[in-house]
Amino acid sequence: MSERNIRITQASGQAVEDQRVEVVERKGIGHPDSICDGLAEAVSQALAQAYLDRVGKVLHYNTDETQLVAGTSAPAFGGGEVIEPIYLLLVGRATKEYQGQRIPTDTIALEAAREYLDETFPHLDVGSDVIVDVRLGEGSGDLQEVFGEDGAVPMANDTSYGVGHAPLTETEQIVLNTERRINGDYTDEHPEIGQDIKVMGKREGDAIDVTVAAATVDAHVNDIHEYRDAVEGVREYVADLATEYTDRDVRVQVNTADDYEEGSIYLTTTGTSAEQGDDGSVGRGNRANGLITPNRPMSMEATSGKNPVNHIGKIYNLLSTEIAKSVVSEVDGIRQLQVRLLSQIGSPIDDPHVADATIVTEGGLAITDVEDEVEAIIDDELEDITGVTERVIEGDLSTF
Amino acid sequence: MSERNIRITQASGQAVEDQRVEVVERKGIGHPDSICDGLAEAVSQALAQAYLDRVGKVLHYNTDETQLVAGTSAPAFGGGEVIEPIYLLLVGRATKEYQGQRIPTDTIALEAAREYLDETFPHLDVGSDVIVDVRLGEGSGDLQEVFGEDGAVPMANDTSYGVGHAPLTETEQIVLNTERRINGDYTDEHPEIGQDIKVMGKREGDAIDVTVAAATVDAHVNDIHEYRDAVEGVREYVADLATEYTDRDVRVQVNTADDYEEGSIYLTTTGTSAEQGDDGSVGRGNRANGLITPNRPMSMEATSGKNPVNHIGKIYNLLSTEIAKSVVSEVDGIRQLQVRLLSQIGSPIDDPHVADATIVTEGGLAITDVEDEVEAIIDDELEDITGVTERVIEGDLSTF
Amino acid sequence: MSERNIRITQASGQAVEDQRVEVVERKGIGHPDSICDGLAEAVSQALAQAYLDRVGKVLHYNTDETQLVAGTSAPAFGGGEVIEPIYLLLVGRATKEYQGQRIPTDTIALEAAREYLDETFPHLDVGSDVIVDVRLGEGSGDLQEVFGEDGAVPMANDTSYGVGHAPLTETEQIVLNTERRINGDYTDEHPEIGQDIKVMGKREGDAIDVTVAAATVDAHVNDIHEYRDAVEGVREYVADLATEYTDRDVRVQVNTADDYEEGSIYLTTTGTSAEQGDDGSVGRGNRANGLITPNRPMSMEATSGKNPVNHIGKIYNLLSTEIAKSVVSEVDGIRQLQVRLLSQIGSPIDDPHVADATIVTEGGLAITDVEDEVEAIIDDELEDITGVTERVIEGDLSTF
Amino acid sequence: MSERNIRITQASGQAVEDQRVEVVERKGIGHPDSICDGLAEAVSQALAQAYLDRVGKVLHYNTDETQLVAGTSAPAFGGGEVIEPIYLLLVGRATKEYQGQRIPTDTIALEAAREYLDETFPHLDVGSDVIVDVRLGEGSGDLQEVFGEDGAVPMANDTSYGVGHAPLTETEQIVLNTERRINGDYTDEHPEIGQDIKVMGKREGDAIDVTVAAATVDAHVNDIHEYRDAVEGVREYVADLATEYTDRDVRVQVNTADDYEEGSIYLTTTGTSAEQGDDGSVGRGNRANGLITPNRPMSMEATSGKNPVNHIGKIYNLLSTEIAKSVVSEVDGIRQLQVRLLSQIGSPIDDPHVADATIVTEGGLAITDVEDEVEAIIDDELEDITGVTERVIEGDLSTF
Repeated sequence: MSERNIRITQASGQAVEDQRVEVVERKGIGHPDSICDGLAEAVSQALAQAYLDRVGKVLHYNTDETQLVAGTSAPAFGGGEVIEPIYLLLVGRATKEYQGQRIPTDTIALEAAREYLDETFPHLDVGSDVIVDVRLGEGSGDLQEVFGEDGAVPMANDTSYGVGHAPLTETEQIVLNTERRINGDYTDEHPEIGQDIKVMGKREGDAIDVTVAAATVDAHVNDIHEYRDAVEGVREYVADLATEYTDRDVRVQVNTADDYEEGSIYLTTTGTSAEQGDDGSVGRGNRANGLITPNRPMSMEATSGKNPVNHIGKIYNLLSTEIAKSVVSEVDGIRQLQVRLLSQIGSPIDDPHVADATIVTEGGLAITDVEDEVEAIIDDELEDITGVTERVIEGDLSTF
Repeated sequence: MSERNIRITQASGQAVEDQRVEVVERKGIGHPDSICDGLAEAVSQALAQAYLDRVGKVLHYNTDETQLVAGTSAPAFGGGEVIEPIYLLLVGRATKEYQGQRIPTDTIALEAAREYLDETFPHLDVGSDVIVDVRLGEGSGDLQEVFGEDGAVPMANDTSYGVGHAPLTETEQIVLNTERRINGDYTDEHPEIGQDIKVMGKREGDAIDVTVAAATVDAHVNDIHEYRDAVEGVREYVADLATEYTDRDVRVQVNTADDYEEGSIYLTTTGTSAEQGDDGSVGRGNRANGLITPNRPMSMEATSGKNPVNHIGKIYNLLSTEIAKSVVSEVDGIRQLQVRLLSQIGSPIDDPHVADATIVTEGGLAITDVEDEVEAIIDDELEDITGVTERVIEGDLSTF
Repeated sequence: MSERNIRITQASGQAVEDQRVEVVERKGIGHPDSICDGLAEAVSQALAQAYLDRVGKVLHYNTDETQLVAGTSAPAFGGGEVIEPIYLLLVGRATKEYQGQRIPTDTIALEAAREYLDETFPHLDVGSDVIVDVRLGEGSGDLQEVFGEDGAVPMANDTSYGVGHAPLTETEQIVLNTERRINGDYTDEHPEIGQDIKVMGKREGDAIDVTVAAATVDAHVNDIHEYRDAVEGVREYVADLATEYTDRDVRVQVNTADDYEEGSIYLTTTGTSAEQGDDGSVGRGNRANGLITPNRPMSMEATSGKNPVNHIGKIYNLLSTEIAKSVVSEVDGIRQLQVRLLSQIGSPIDDPHVADATIVTEGGLAITDVEDEVEAIIDDELEDITGVTERVIEGDLSTF
Repeated sequence: MSERNIRITQASGQAVEDQRVEVVERKGIGHPDSICDGLAEAVSQALAQAYLDRVGKVLHYNTDETQLVAGTSAPAFGGGEVIEPIYLLLVGRATKEYQGQRIPTDTIALEAAREYLDETFPHLDVGSDVIVDVRLGEGSGDLQEVFGEDGAVPMANDTSYGVGHAPLTETEQIVLNTERRINGDYTDEHPEIGQDIKVMGKREGDAIDVTVAAATVDAHVNDIHEYRDAVEGVREYVADLATEYTDRDVRVQVNTADDYEEGSIYLTTTGTSAEQGDDGSVGRGNRANGLITPNRPMSMEATSGKNPVNHIGKIYNLLSTEIAKSVVSEVDGIRQLQVRLLSQIGSPIDDPHVADATIVTEGGLAITDVEDEVEAIIDDELEDITGVTERVIEGDLSTF
């Protein structure tokens, strides 16, 4: 049995999949809040890598505070323009000097930001459509102590917690994959669709409503007919895609706020609403698992940009999700699993104050039937907690 | 019976008060995230009032994006100094021209911010310890339509929801009031205590741990003995205060991260950790009811700074809390009530898609015993929904 | 005879006073360029004083780069308002750490700027009408060496020169004193006149045209009649004042660009055109003697904000003017004196490469008649060169 | 005879070429002040062109206020890095809307700035080594009237003047061409030399001292020997080049502030001192003819970035230089010519208040011998004044 404080209990209510009403949301990578999440995380990865390359270990930093101020644009069929650029301020803390060696944290941050924007937003001209500014200060001195000797498991720097669950409900799968796949394969072949894709899923009983707000890109939309086709294309793609995840009735609506007669449609020049009127910041959108799920407990933690070595909120949110996934993939008979990790300030992060797993079993299965197996997996995952850090630095674990 | 879609159901689990472990947190008004919340809301109130004064109605705006970049300070017994100022960027959208009349939104915002800082932070010298900058853009044109004719109940501009609950558990009451009363009466007589008070409450069974991190103000602390006294003073005050809210065992700890031997103590020049190393932004701290409550469903919504006339997420979060309070104060036998309001895009905001009340009753009371009464109160409160808007503009409803 | 390289020569041309056409200009303290000069110099004085107070000597700094971005205003009879604030960016170099002691250069700069603005601009609300931001970097390391041992005369850090002359022509005196006295006594009793006073003097033969552009302050001007009176008041005051300096014919014109019928008048809310459309920066306006004098050689040097201990351009421009004044006040028979000091990089600043005095004598006086006396005065003044530094730090020598 | 007020007079003193001491300076295109001049002018050209393309005429703007805040760098043999980026703030006024059409002035400015930097500074990585920000406000409304009907000669908007001279002295030619040719052909083949080239020429009698400060680029300099070779290469190149312009003795010194023993050399990562410690702004460096010439009258005007259609100071400074060149190339016997143009507010700019030509003739030539010819050329050039505007917009006339 584990020496860690792991508790397995039966959930008191129904699995979300069985609740009457379920609401799920995902802000796509082009949403202003997600742009900030993405930048915060890109800068974080670049800094962590730079520290590793230069001094052999990750030093103190947190870059979880990007602010986006929306621009002004004049989209037009066939190609409009940005009138006033988007302003992005990268904010955070970083160690700028270590044992006499200066670390160019600001230029590293700017370069990472630019690369991220260039890769992610093909219709955005970094440098004229977007200004990227940076204000990275140094942290308070004593924080630097936390990292301890090399190789050792870091100590928790805060009382914090993380929460994760698995499996995803059908509605969650549809919402998550709708955005991911539109921003993956679909836009490759359909440049008329931008990166700012917002998906809302609402299930009442067995009827699922999927509402997509998809920015279109004016240079690839020549008139209202092409716009209509672009919207209809998305609708069909999503309707199709949904059938892979559910047998329930799915109704898909795209750009419902459009008013063709008023000429009010979702046309952009850059593929994101940040070009006109929508500000953004880190931690205001998706949780670490990529979704906003009011039916489930959520952590307030802004994970993107946090230091993955010792920021306990970030690590525990990611790890609890990983644990939940592992358990449901390895243990049969679990209809829903929620994992919550609560840190103990000053203790090694692999030894949480408590690791809670709340389970809804399938059929008549008792908790006791799966308890040991679940505990063993949780124990293993905690043992390997520093693997989360590595995967975050490599960019293998998404945070938004 | 109400024509609104109101549903009253029995909660499936235990009341939070009866759960084995409960965690509650509050970031005080001097915490960097709360500074941003407070500024966003102060600017919002000033703009709303200016619109009312100048054009007779509240125009489109949202000022929910303040970014704080921490400064650098050198606190010292007897009085230190700020080395590099805190940088505050007020961000949002505002209507700058209406029927040919220009509205000085930027100067209104700056003035409101300065006043708020002056009133709230007696040890902070606005203009040299803090730089306040502003970037308020104009929103997208079609949003302006939403506000409709005068007097009419606005339409929901989004699919959004709000969640509130009542009564507060004992732990919640202690956490909330610890900060409120320290930042109220206590600091009036104890200028050595700053505004950055963070309170964490953790209850396990009947043992409540209250952990307070309280910034001290160096000009009023002349040596380590006075520091120790200041910390002990807070501890006693809180221990005392807690007995008003609970009969459970309460253990209070203040500034646990201090290390007297290392000289590492929580001494500041301005009363807030924003002076050194802690950045902040809106919506990252307390929820609309002033608390962070992992045991309960929480909304991700950043309510501070949002337009209180038509921002449905703000209104529903505030209203659901108000409803919950009304119900528990008027109806006997309710151990816990959670209210959730889900908006219907395009419908009047007083007619939500659904208003859900989930109840844990006391003793053997059945839901049916209170159902009608609860529904009637919810109906009344929804009827009077525009009252929430007014109270927000007046500053009578706090959002963080 | 002096061991310094001092050369006294006869000027080849006429004294400016005797030339047919003379043009002189002064941008008043409220002109956007002069606001920047004033701030740069106020910040410089505050930093120099802080260094003296804290480490006993002035460390390396230069704060000669303030940028002003104009605001937007809506002036109106009886009182208008600023719509978009003026943005001021204080820029320069400063030593932020000295022998382990941190110097809060940014907060010192911000405080000095605020005080200067508060004192100089009674109609400007610092914090809402103006945003003051700061970016002071550290200089290149080797510059710090220049200051040498305490008490020693510093070495010249550059090949640079300064130029000064005396006495002022009548036109120069009128232009200089018109602005100084309006911004001195006159506005005390006439709050309807702002600080942005621009004076242009043009003399052709014996006819002097003085053109004044004087900002009026809307809160003190209730209608077009009061405006007309305000303008006429200035005209009379200047016409009167001019007779103190000349017997020539003087014609005074005030706010000639006004067009009463079009309603185009020089009305402001804050007393400076920086509120609407006029940007500014350091070193773009008056030379170190307070004037722009196309008839005379001028130095391009931006003296305001420069370090008065070792910035040779600043010191030589101020000193050459002081020398010229001393000579003409002590030596009879000098119609015009121009002094030019050229530095020798790496030599003590009291030993210039060359000190040139070019003289137009009166009557039939020969250069040889005054040569020795002039040389002795120049020698004395060079001997006392560090006195210039002290007077600059005390604020006794104006630089614009 | 011309109807314009043109005056030709004999100069009272010696030609500069014949004066005993002459000082001339040029700040190269990579000097921080010149970077600002170059950007201001690049942005100006782009805006003028955009206005012509979009509305058929140049609208009101002035972009003459770029502020550069130096960065921090760590140059190192073989390749160092920028630690903190250079910050560039483009400032000015521009017309953002014309007859209902919005002009994207900010994005045009950013794009022009980026292109200019990319083309001019091969070792500077725009976006990470430099942040470019922009604050272009709108001008005061009544200024827009000035431009008048199409085709007409604009009216002077100010009392201003310009001054030019020809021919260049030998020292002036050496100084100007040293920088131009190093930054032209030389650096193409010698990437170890950066763009920040400062040249100072001092002539005493027949001895000319040329002092060059030339930034080297660390990626192309592997050790102190290569550095020494780089410096010596420049010295030889300049010594050689000088013989094309003079028969006088020329001594060339390069990077005289170097101290090899202290390891203090002029090594940079980006080729400009803006990377470390040297701030800059517009109008602080070279005059419109590319030189700083204390021996001659100079205009204070910051010409770079000014609107070339109606900014009289810019036009008259450029035109007076063009006139002087034309005259000396077409009229024999002129040793020195200085042209001064003084505007008349409200009059067409081709009809100045006065056009003064002051001449030093050669041999025994009398002014009357050349008077008519000179006047005719001046008259012609004034007639064609709008040609200056066109050549500025085309980028054919340099302003710094």
